[in-house]
Amino acid sequence: MGRALLTDLYELNMAASYLRHGMDDAATFSLFVRELPPGRGFLVAAGLEESIAFLEQLHFDAGDLSYLKDSLGFGDDAIAAFRDLRFTGDVWAVPEGRIVLAGEPLLEVTAPIAEAQLAETFLLNRITLETTLASKAARCVLAAAGRDLVDFSFRRTHGVEAAMAVARTSALTGFVATSNVEAAREFGLPAAGTMAHSYVEAFRGEEEAFRAFAGDYPDRCTFLVDTYDTLEGTRRAVAVIEELELAGPVGIRLDSGDLAELARDARAMLDDAGHPEVRVFASGGLDEYQIEALVAARAPIDAFGVGTLMGVSADAPYLDTVYKLVQYGGRPVMKLSAQKTTAPGPKQVFRGASLDEDVIGLRNEAPPARHEPLLERVMANGRRTLGTESLEAPRRRFRDDLDRLPDAARLIQGPVAPRARTSPALRDLAERTRSGVSP
Amino acid sequence: MGRALLTDLYELNMAASYLRHGMDDAATFSLFVRELPPGRGFLVAAGLEESIAFLEQLHFDAGDLSYLKDSLGFGDDAIAAFRDLRFTGDVWAVPEGRIVLAGEPLLEVTAPIAEAQLAETFLLNRITLETTLASKAARCVLAAAGRDLVDFSFRRTHGVEAAMAVARTSALTGFVATSNVEAAREFGLPAAGTMAHSYVEAFRGEEEAFRAFAGDYPDRCTFLVDTYDTLEGTRRAVAVIEELELAGPVGIRLDSGDLAELARDARAMLDDAGHPEVRVFASGGLDEYQIEALVAARAPIDAFGVGTLMGVSADAPYLDTVYKLVQYGGRPVMKLSAQKTTAPGPKQVFRGASLDEDVIGLRNEAPPARHEPLLERVMANGRRTLGTESLEAPRRRFRDDLDRLPDAARLIQGPVAPRARTSPALRDLAERTRSGVSP
Repeated sequence: MGRALLTDLYELNMAASYLRHGMDDAATFSLFVRELPPGRGFLVAAGLEESIAFLEQLHFDAGDLSYLKDSLGFGDDAIAAFRDLRFTGDVWAVPEGRIVLAGEPLLEVTAPIAEAQLAETFLLNRITLETTLASKAARCVLAAAGRDLVDFSFRRTHGVEAAMAVARTSALTGFVATSNVEAAREFGLPAAGTMAHSYVEAFRGEEEAFRAFAGDYPDRCTFLVDTYDTLEGTRRAVAVIEELELAGPVGIRLDSGDLAELARDARAMLDDAGHPEVRVFASGGLDEYQIEALVAARAPIDAFGVGTLMGVSADAPYLDTVYKLVQYGGRPVMKLSAQKTTAPGPKQVFRGASLDEDVIGLRNEAPPARHEPLLERVMANGRRTLGTESLEAPRRRFRDDLDRLPDAARLIQGPVAPRARTSPALRDLAERTRSGVSP
Repeated sequence: MGRALLTDLYELNMAASYLRHGMDDAATFSLFVRELPPGRGFLVAAGLEESIAFLEQLHFDAGDLSYLKDSLGFGDDAIAAFRDLRFTGDVWAVPEGRIVLAGEPLLEVTAPIAEAQLAETFLLNRITLETTLASKAARCVLAAAGRDLVDFSFRRTHGVEAAMAVARTSALTGFVATSNVEAAREFGLPAAGTMAHSYVEAFRGEEEAFRAFAGDYPDRCTFLVDTYDTLEGTRRAVAVIEELELAGPVGIRLDSGDLAELARDARAMLDDAGHPEVRVFASGGLDEYQIEALVAARAPIDAFGVGTLMGVSADAPYLDTVYKLVQYGGRPVMKLSAQKTTAPGPKQVFRGASLDEDVIGLRNEAPPARHEPLLERVMANGRRTLGTESLEAPRRRFRDDLDRLPDAARLIQGPVAPRARTSPALRDLAERTRSGVSP
């Protein structure tokens, strides 16, 4: 599959029309988030790797072309033009892991307008997905305040592809492992997992289940203790730990009830029994709000499993991302529809020492003093120029930017996002363009 | 890829342990939704086709086995057992398109426990995804009260896979087309699409853009009229329609502003100009709540494009789905954790003339009078027994069940879901099992 049909029909309508009318001038489209959702003080850029891979491969194969001709009625001229179409443009983008704010371009495409238009749907989809997920995971990391986090979301993400993206973006922001085995393999992440209630129930008794499991996995055994009664389960886990003299990393997992109270009681029981090495793991409907409350309550929990609420970014399952034409054939373009004005021209974001000093400017203007440019050229003439990188690089970028984020933006409850300023040069271009817009 | 790594690590831990301990008795797992989210009066069953396809293909390939051995440390006995593992079980399920309620099994798997356990993650993921999406789309269909609906969600779904699922499930509930070209091809759906604001902006003037587009697509031309001024844009569309004597299906699309008021003004302008045949299409942040309001305001809108809010099921982006062991080796099993009690044994749902007469009972009991069983056997001994079907069959099932749904469940604002009753035989089994549960 050429992947070029992974698009909305209107992109094909427009592309064919541009090609037919000989409109092959370079267009620049800017992809950004208009406004942050409530509950977000910042976003974490992600989705660039898959976006580049898409653009590198973009073409119509024979089956695609047959479908467009026979089923959708595109004419021979359009089909001929589509047959030769490849992505030949340049892409500037914010590297993955960096923090971004409302209005800041995450990615800008400059290419012959048909190519740039065709890519809209996929680029919006992918950048929105991964940036949404990374931003949610980042808040879990903030809430956990140094405790370990594990991605448990696979069972209720919006498909396998989304599950892979959750595993990747949560690792990018600092999660230590994922339960998703395919993602662990694909991204080289630690895989984590214990047992389900069904395992305990499949045996005649809880202790029998624990004994069987510990015998099989003596060096990585976490006992799920809440199938019948959490503290009774903890007692049985201790009995099996002592009986089998388990020495590897051992833990118990709490998955229901009042987690703070149960964690305290279980911790006391473990300590009293002389097992300070046994870790307490908590899961079950957790998100950053729950984790913050548990941490504030000083619940003795060593690690959190975070599932569905992060996996679908339940409180903000999408972002207000747009992909706007800002220049065509050297002519700056802006949209003036009510409440939806967009600034013209290719852009750059300049970042100062703190994230409340961001400036959105023109791509070619000089950075303000003590500011560095955020967008980098990642493709030139249709080829990748960004070096391939492991997740370590975006992880480091995220940590660095997080250190420069104002406290108000880091709040779990009621965060306040910094607003980027607009450079005088960009304001000036917007003024000049506005007065010249031809309706 | 054998797809068997599309699972949580704990499923593999448990499966390997079962195999090692010779626990190969048949287990029955029941997949159901514990409680409906607020804002849902019913759910629409979907995801079965992909679930069956997964189970039919389930196996570990050589690469999977190497990873499990070399990277995750599974022993030779586990690897040997995984190598031979296929899904050999039976599956009963609610056919796609039928309406289901809280507690009603959507799907039940009976298989040697390792096989049934391994499938948990994928089955939960897929059934949750498609049932979530179908249920959201169904509410849009109710709100539109007979007006046409088109899926516009691709750009902000949680990945391409989710976009395909939205196109499929929205078609299943009655949408007439999708903008997603790959989905249109895959599922044989009508593709729909017009132009974006960027197209209008790429030309020197709006009328020039309209003229170019209409020249290219004279038989399927919808003019996006709100780039500069909606009514001025409508006037220009009329001019081009008359200039080019467009005769095919022609429309205008409103994408911003007060849609009800603009639709009325545009409709009046079109009618005054002698063009009652030009359809008015509305889009832009629509969901069932907005659509209901527009319909209630008698806005003269012929068709709605529904995007992001449906595509991520924004007000309820997941369901409280679970996959619970209910029988093992002929022994009924139930979980008694606080607030999470599950009923034991393989089940059936019996449906009467109205959906407020549903009864959840045991699979083998006789249906109550004037009730029909809802779950059908769709796989036997690892092979599909459900005939392959087009989307027409689930679409018809949905319409039939919708006709039997009480009015309170159909409300867009504050719907009230019917509750299924429990049969005396199931209550009796639960009582007997509860008293015999071995902690």
